[in-house]
Amino acid sequence: MLLSKNVGYVRHTFRTLLKPQVASWITPVPGGVGPMTVAMLMQNTVEAAKRDLEKRLSTIWNMRYLPLALHEPVPSDIEIASEQRPKNISDVAEEIGLYKNEVNLYGKKKAKVSLKVLERLNHVENGNYVVVTGITPTPLGEGKSTTAIGLVQALGAHLNKNVFACVRQPSQGPTFGIKGGAAGGGYSQVIPMDEFNLHLTGDIHAITASNNLLAAAIDARIFHESTQSDKALYSRLVPSKKNGERIFSAIQIRRLEKLGITERDPNKLTDEERTRFARLDIDPDTVTWQRVIDTNDRFLRKITIGQSATEKGRVRSAQFDITVASEVMAVLALTTSMEDMREKLGKMVVATSFNGSPVTADDLGITGALTVLMRDAIEPNLMQTLEGTPVFVHAGPFANIAHGNSSILADKIALKLTGPDGFVITEAGFGADIGMEKFFNIKCRRSGLIPSVVVLVATVRAIKMHGGGPAVVAGQPLAREYSEENLDLLEKGFSNPRKQIENAQMFGVPVVFALNRFASDTDKEVEIALRLARESGAIDAVSAYHWSHGGLGAVDLAKSVVKATESRSKFQFLYELNLPIAEKIEIIAKKIYGADGIELSPEAQAKVDLYTKQGFGDLPICMAKTHLSLSHKPELKGAPTGFVLPIRDIRASVGAGFLYPLVGTMSTMPGLPTRPCFYDIDIDPDTSEIKGLF
Amino acid sequence: MLLSKNVGYVRHTFRTLLKPQVASWITPVPGGVGPMTVAMLMQNTVEAAKRDLEKRLSTIWNMRYLPLALHEPVPSDIEIASEQRPKNISDVAEEIGLYKNEVNLYGKKKAKVSLKVLERLNHVENGNYVVVTGITPTPLGEGKSTTAIGLVQALGAHLNKNVFACVRQPSQGPTFGIKGGAAGGGYSQVIPMDEFNLHLTGDIHAITASNNLLAAAIDARIFHESTQSDKALYSRLVPSKKNGERIFSAIQIRRLEKLGITERDPNKLTDEERTRFARLDIDPDTVTWQRVIDTNDRFLRKITIGQSATEKGRVRSAQFDITVASEVMAVLALTTSMEDMREKLGKMVVATSFNGSPVTADDLGITGALTVLMRDAIEPNLMQTLEGTPVFVHAGPFANIAHGNSSILADKIALKLTGPDGFVITEAGFGADIGMEKFFNIKCRRSGLIPSVVVLVATVRAIKMHGGGPAVVAGQPLAREYSEENLDLLEKGFSNPRKQIENAQMFGVPVVFALNRFASDTDKEVEIALRLARESGAIDAVSAYHWSHGGLGAVDLAKSVVKATESRSKFQFLYELNLPIAEKIEIIAKKIYGADGIELSPEAQAKVDLYTKQGFGDLPICMAKTHLSLSHKPELKGAPTGFVLPIRDIRASVGAGFLYPLVGTMSTMPGLPTRPCFYDIDIDPDTSEIKGLF
Repeated sequence: MLLSKNVGYVRHTFRTLLKPQVASWITPVPGGVGPMTVAMLMQNTVEAAKRDLEKRLSTIWNMRYLPLALHEPVPSDIEIASEQRPKNISDVAEEIGLYKNEVNLYGKKKAKVSLKVLERLNHVENGNYVVVTGITPTPLGEGKSTTAIGLVQALGAHLNKNVFACVRQPSQGPTFGIKGGAAGGGYSQVIPMDEFNLHLTGDIHAITASNNLLAAAIDARIFHESTQSDKALYSRLVPSKKNGERIFSAIQIRRLEKLGITERDPNKLTDEERTRFARLDIDPDTVTWQRVIDTNDRFLRKITIGQSATEKGRVRSAQFDITVASEVMAVLALTTSMEDMREKLGKMVVATSFNGSPVTADDLGITGALTVLMRDAIEPNLMQTLEGTPVFVHAGPFANIAHGNSSILADKIALKLTGPDGFVITEAGFGADIGMEKFFNIKCRRSGLIPSVVVLVATVRAIKMHGGGPAVVAGQPLAREYSEENLDLLEKGFSNPRKQIENAQMFGVPVVFALNRFASDTDKEVEIALRLARESGAIDAVSAYHWSHGGLGAVDLAKSVVKATESRSKFQFLYELNLPIAEKIEIIAKKIYGADGIELSPEAQAKVDLYTKQGFGDLPICMAKTHLSLSHKPELKGAPTGFVLPIRDIRASVGAGFLYPLVGTMSTMPGLPTRPCFYDIDIDPDTSEIKGLF
Repeated sequence: MLLSKNVGYVRHTFRTLLKPQVASWITPVPGGVGPMTVAMLMQNTVEAAKRDLEKRLSTIWNMRYLPLALHEPVPSDIEIASEQRPKNISDVAEEIGLYKNEVNLYGKKKAKVSLKVLERLNHVENGNYVVVTGITPTPLGEGKSTTAIGLVQALGAHLNKNVFACVRQPSQGPTFGIKGGAAGGGYSQVIPMDEFNLHLTGDIHAITASNNLLAAAIDARIFHESTQSDKALYSRLVPSKKNGERIFSAIQIRRLEKLGITERDPNKLTDEERTRFARLDIDPDTVTWQRVIDTNDRFLRKITIGQSATEKGRVRSAQFDITVASEVMAVLALTTSMEDMREKLGKMVVATSFNGSPVTADDLGITGALTVLMRDAIEPNLMQTLEGTPVFVHAGPFANIAHGNSSILADKIALKLTGPDGFVITEAGFGADIGMEKFFNIKCRRSGLIPSVVVLVATVRAIKMHGGGPAVVAGQPLAREYSEENLDLLEKGFSNPRKQIENAQMFGVPVVFALNRFASDTDKEVEIALRLARESGAIDAVSAYHWSHGGLGAVDLAKSVVKATESRSKFQFLYELNLPIAEKIEIIAKKIYGADGIELSPEAQAKVDLYTKQGFGDLPICMAKTHLSLSHKPELKGAPTGFVLPIRDIRASVGAGFLYPLVGTMSTMPGLPTRPCFYDIDIDPDTSEIKGLF
């Protein structure tokens, strides 16, 4: 089985290598190329192709791993990251079989990878697709990202597998606010961690630009429609050129099609058609599209805009969200090609017209411009781990109002590059009830990719909390129960991991339970946790100490994951898309959260009716629920039952392609504390080295 | 003279080449390096250095120029740009003598260049420093950027000189709004023009992030100070670590120094000292720091913020400016090193405290974080012209409330790279009365660089307008006077070029008059304009047709510029910094604008008193005046006299280092028209080629 997989891979690689390359290696010379030259070029080309092929035929990458110099006590993240000298990213790209023309460097340590790789490796079988998720966490987090990175370091640098990590790009807001960076931690990190946490290659900035151009266009359009006659509006929208010619632009023709107007000569539309074409008639009170900024700016949570005299009194209430909450981010994460992205961006609904029709980005004539702003952002960003294995950092949608998973495109490219014996490790935000459920029902449904294994991360600390341990609060010392052995809390608290293991099993995917071990965990505690996990249905359960030891600390976990991929995943979705909206929500609430049922508020019920009428009823569901409990109440730990899940409202991300029911209030703009992280952040002006990031 | 210059250059290059390189080429090997190895490495190093030196000793770059395929009629800018195949920017970097470790690629066609080049070439004599400016323009612009690019194409590709263009990065707002791109035009452009106009390498996005982090910090601090006791505030600002230790961070120690508090143990400050340290006591009504966005969003011109219940009623009026109007942009343009940038960012004044003291970014503890966000932005961006000559694109401060010139650092690096026989062509925004005056009095004063030549760009169209021709309005057909010969209007209108030539001469710099020739200009018109220019004091006057012919069309202009550098520039400033604020403003108004005097409003007078008291009186002056007239009234054409210049208010950019008197109202946020440019912008999903940019 393993052998036949390899043979197939070699055959495909050979075919795809020779076909496009021979053509592209002969660049036309000005003045023409004679037959002799062509023959010589051909010969050279074939020789070069052969040599190149030999290098690339090995299914195992020839990687140079970076040795770790482990220290105890474990230094700060930025100290560890600064001590390691990353490979040039061009070397990493070559090691994993990328061609030079598929890679755009952004400095020496980051690169963008072209989507063309997908065409070239179209016939290569995908690698094993592993999602790292967690039990319901404490507010401190249980080390999901760190475990994902530790696992790839183990699979690569220690088991010599082809392995890729696919992770989310963090928002810059929290980096300077309260949370710090998000590149993993300890000896399991993405490096350079400063470049990972700052700007990266500008994808989030492109989303800000794109989102806000659309926002500005909405208000400007409302303004211009309110100050101009139908005639003036039409003649400005379809102006005569210098030569008197008057034509509809491509995007205006799409609007004509939508309106069912068949005439294509701007001078021949009837007055009624001109009015319908020119007036979007947006009801300002229905605008759902908000401006965004990648900064924690609490004073923009609710604002009034349009108060300058130039806007002639057209004030309205609005807000800024953090950029990662933009639907454009969700589109980026869920898109599968440039063409698909353009279509999704155009379909984004921004408001409702006075007659009740959804108004889209395409109606505003802005689809092309939005796509142009996102042209480079669509390419995944290549970086590396502390031990030199490849990482894609791409997209980072909010994990509550969006689906909290990194991009489909990064996963797809990585799965082709690793090949059938390789591994792609990706992470789903929040606990398994949220991130994993969305990973399966939204992301995998959209991508068509079949997940092989779920890695469920837990800590003794979090399990004890679920067993009734004292509250865990960020910034406050931990109670004694968490540093001393307490088997009772541990056994009681296992109700949560047990439920999360069941949740993963509902999708037919084998679960490996990964205990992220802390120094204070006793052997007995670890032993019991692992036993309970196996009893709850995990295919295997191991402890790992990658934070303090890098990949070495996750070798057992890596071996379990490899083994788990041998038992075939029988992946299935939790619900079918064509079910009624409320029924889909109910299935998630009952099966995943353990609720008795759901209760729709009148607003939510109205949205169910509206979206069903507007034709959005077949979209998957993206629950916006707290991650601190399986229920909607953060204080209910363990695996609560006997509750009814209240649905306060429902919103639609029509472009990204999901409906998001709001269970409670979701903040979409964090704030800055009294003493933000930025107090400690500085730069050495001589070396440009950054201090104080963590 | 020319010879001795060269010898000096060679000597310096040799010295600087051998010194740092020998050291850096020997990378330590793990396990140690024996003496034999060292000897061999040394030998190899010397050989390699010799070979490298030979390549680099030639003072003339060995450039591959890109031939132009000229078409008539001249196609659209994006068509011309797409037809040309740029060199890889890594090749351009090598051609101009940059080392690989000094260059960070951003894709294949853009790169950032390290400031380390300045150290390496410290002893190389600067090239000739040429500033391109213009007469007072029509609203259509007279082709200053296009002339600057045409001139470098001529100097490089046609006269084989070492030549660099240093231009501003355009704001993305207008690109999607009404103005289109800013990469030059016709056959004189920076390419790839889409990458030039979109995102570039993210510098403007970094400014947005930096500016808005500071804005969020101001409001968050006001909020936290207003909701907490002195004690709570102090203990949050100087918290105890886990081990009980309590220390001031580096930036907090700077604040202690500023306050004259000598104690460094947080536990030993007196209560009064703790209060002074913890309370910035910002008066919310005095906040001058605004949020920014790189989008034309008119509805953000005046807003109310803080209306969410979480801000507990602390609402205030605020606004968004376009990002290029941010003081951070002006800092970037005027900085000379990483250390200097950090100092300038820290000195930015954002508000006044209730007791009247200026509150700075440093007081907010944010200087290091702002610098970290700007770490990559400080490096100039390398691109190329249509004919393959190098271009630095770096910084683009607003030309009215800021000084409208590209960065000092780009100019400095370019002047070293071209060497003493080379040329650096930079452009100053708006007419000579504004952009050039600020270039000399602000930028050159800060940089210490001595300008060699002024190129004053004019068109027959603009001169006729100054002679009383009908109004020129964007989007409306031109009056017949502009397409037919009219010597009378031309001679009358020459009052404006004459005054602008005088203005340049006041600084002791020779002026070359460049007539940007249109197809409709008659030979007679051109002849008269050139004669009048010479009679007005221009050292030479030539016409150029680079828009339709690229560098070929500007060869005469290039020869004149070369010749002009042979007459020594006797550069002097217009005013001394230690003069009273009002006197400096008056000197500019009388000498440059031709005013009889100035009139300060009570607000302006109050600011004069305040800034003088606060110690900002010695800053240079950055006039915020209309560019459409030498006076403050856009409708006064030619060279008006007999007017008094009204100064409505004065603002301070203390970090960037200038005071800006407001002559009239300056809009800092453009809007979107009914049919913005974005209607025509689209992307081909298969090729990723962009359409509709212009």
